[in-house]
Amino acid sequence: MAVLASADQLASARAARAAYRSGVSEPTSGIAAGLTQANLIAVPADWAFETLLYAQRNPKPCPVLEVIEAGQVESALAPGSDIRTDIGRYRIWRDGELVSEQNDARDAWEEHPDLVAFLIGCSFTFETGLVDAGIPIRHQELGRNVPMYRTNIDCTPAGRLRGEMVVSMRPIPAGRVADAVQISGRTPAVHGAPVHIGDPASLGIADLARPDFGDAPEVRDGEIPVFWACGVTPQAAIMASKPPFAVTHAPGYMFITDVPDAEYIV
Amino acid sequence: MAVLASADQLASARAARAAYRSGVSEPTSGIAAGLTQANLIAVPADWAFETLLYAQRNPKPCPVLEVIEAGQVESALAPGSDIRTDIGRYRIWRDGELVSEQNDARDAWEEHPDLVAFLIGCSFTFETGLVDAGIPIRHQELGRNVPMYRTNIDCTPAGRLRGEMVVSMRPIPAGRVADAVQISGRTPAVHGAPVHIGDPASLGIADLARPDFGDAPEVRDGEIPVFWACGVTPQAAIMASKPPFAVTHAPGYMFITDVPDAEYIV
Repeated sequence: MAVLASADQLASARAARAAYRSGVSEPTSGIAAGLTQANLIAVPADWAFETLLYAQRNPKPCPVLEVIEAGQVESALAPGSDIRTDIGRYRIWRDGELVSEQNDARDAWEEHPDLVAFLIGCSFTFETGLVDAGIPIRHQELGRNVPMYRTNIDCTPAGRLRGEMVVSMRPIPAGRVADAVQISGRTPAVHGAPVHIGDPASLGIADLARPDFGDAPEVRDGEIPVFWACGVTPQAAIMASKPPFAVTHAPGYMFITDVPDAEYIV
Repeated sequence: MAVLASADQLASARAARAAYRSGVSEPTSGIAAGLTQANLIAVPADWAFETLLYAQRNPKPCPVLEVIEAGQVESALAPGSDIRTDIGRYRIWRDGELVSEQNDARDAWEEHPDLVAFLIGCSFTFETGLVDAGIPIRHQELGRNVPMYRTNIDCTPAGRLRGEMVVSMRPIPAGRVADAVQISGRTPAVHGAPVHIGDPASLGIADLARPDFGDAPEVRDGEIPVFWACGVTPQAAIMASKPPFAVTHAPGYMFITDVPDAEYIV
């Protein structure tokens, strides 16, 4: 299916990437609405096979939208982009430890010119469908980052890579939960249907008010916490597996592509 | 979705693998009906990333069902199996040339203990659905191998790997072509809907009666040739890209798993 972005959408996406390139840093939920956003993980070439295999074995949290090979920095999903600069906030990891957050990662590519970058689907893609169906997205309404949690669900390991699944949570009115399942289920390439509905404790989440990433949620009466597999999962794998070096986006600060969300609807 | 195989199905699959292990060699269309069959490509470890990336970039012809890492020979899709022996006919490739067909590949794994094996989905999986819907599968009826053709459609390259798409062809009664599209479209993990319907010439196929792999077809009056992406596509990539060494199955002689076809229906 080839779905074309509108001129307005493309202008918004390019403006956002240009702003991040020039130093602006902001969570991207709701930015360039209707265009797909992506998670980033970049690793040295000798970790690339295991990273791609980890994604292949864990497609719900790690749906691969694109692989930017060593020596290349432009995403085919966003012509003219530069993966080293066009995200609002990067994280630099050494031996599994987060050592720096910065709005430019050119120094990382200078240090490791063989970095292979993986763009992973993002649940923001199906938020458009939820909003279009009249299902409120609380964190967007509040201008906050989506809350994300580490869970007790182990991903399938691949070589040296292992780690638990990270989920994002949206409170959904009980009467719309089934709709939210069906709408997000239509985008299997970007996390698809929820992995869990309604019981944080059984995911090993002790306190919904204290997410591991992003901002605290606001769950109102009559709302059910709904959990989707999250593209921050590779960062949990970095923490657990300790590759010598990695670059990721900061949770919620995504790479904005030129590809319409509708491209990923089956 | 967890779909369980019946005891009879599992017994058939195990018996088939045991027979191939002991030297039997036969096309597997229709064998262990209802269980998924897979294409094989195994490459030395330093080609594994590009092979997985080639599959990720060309998911219709190369849907990855499993990756068996270097040093392992048992498929998780068929407990107790041995990927070096349980296929009826192997092909050994050197520098892009087919140098041997044999019913046992243990010598290949002895020569290259770092082989990484990829199991790729097979169109036989959706044949079950077609038969169940009363759509005849001619090559099964005739006890022949499915006809396969190289095409003029280039796959997306990955590193050193490039090549054209290979398709399989089934003649379908004109009144059932739409049904065949919809039924096969429900299994996107195993090639999904056809890539082409009705005009061999526009795929670069000069003579339908002379397939590049498998047996000649029999297209009857009122039937339309329908083309699906084929898991032999990695063999075309081997021919075009000339990796120093590779092992594949022989077209039509698939690896039989214990996984029900229904597991791959969305």
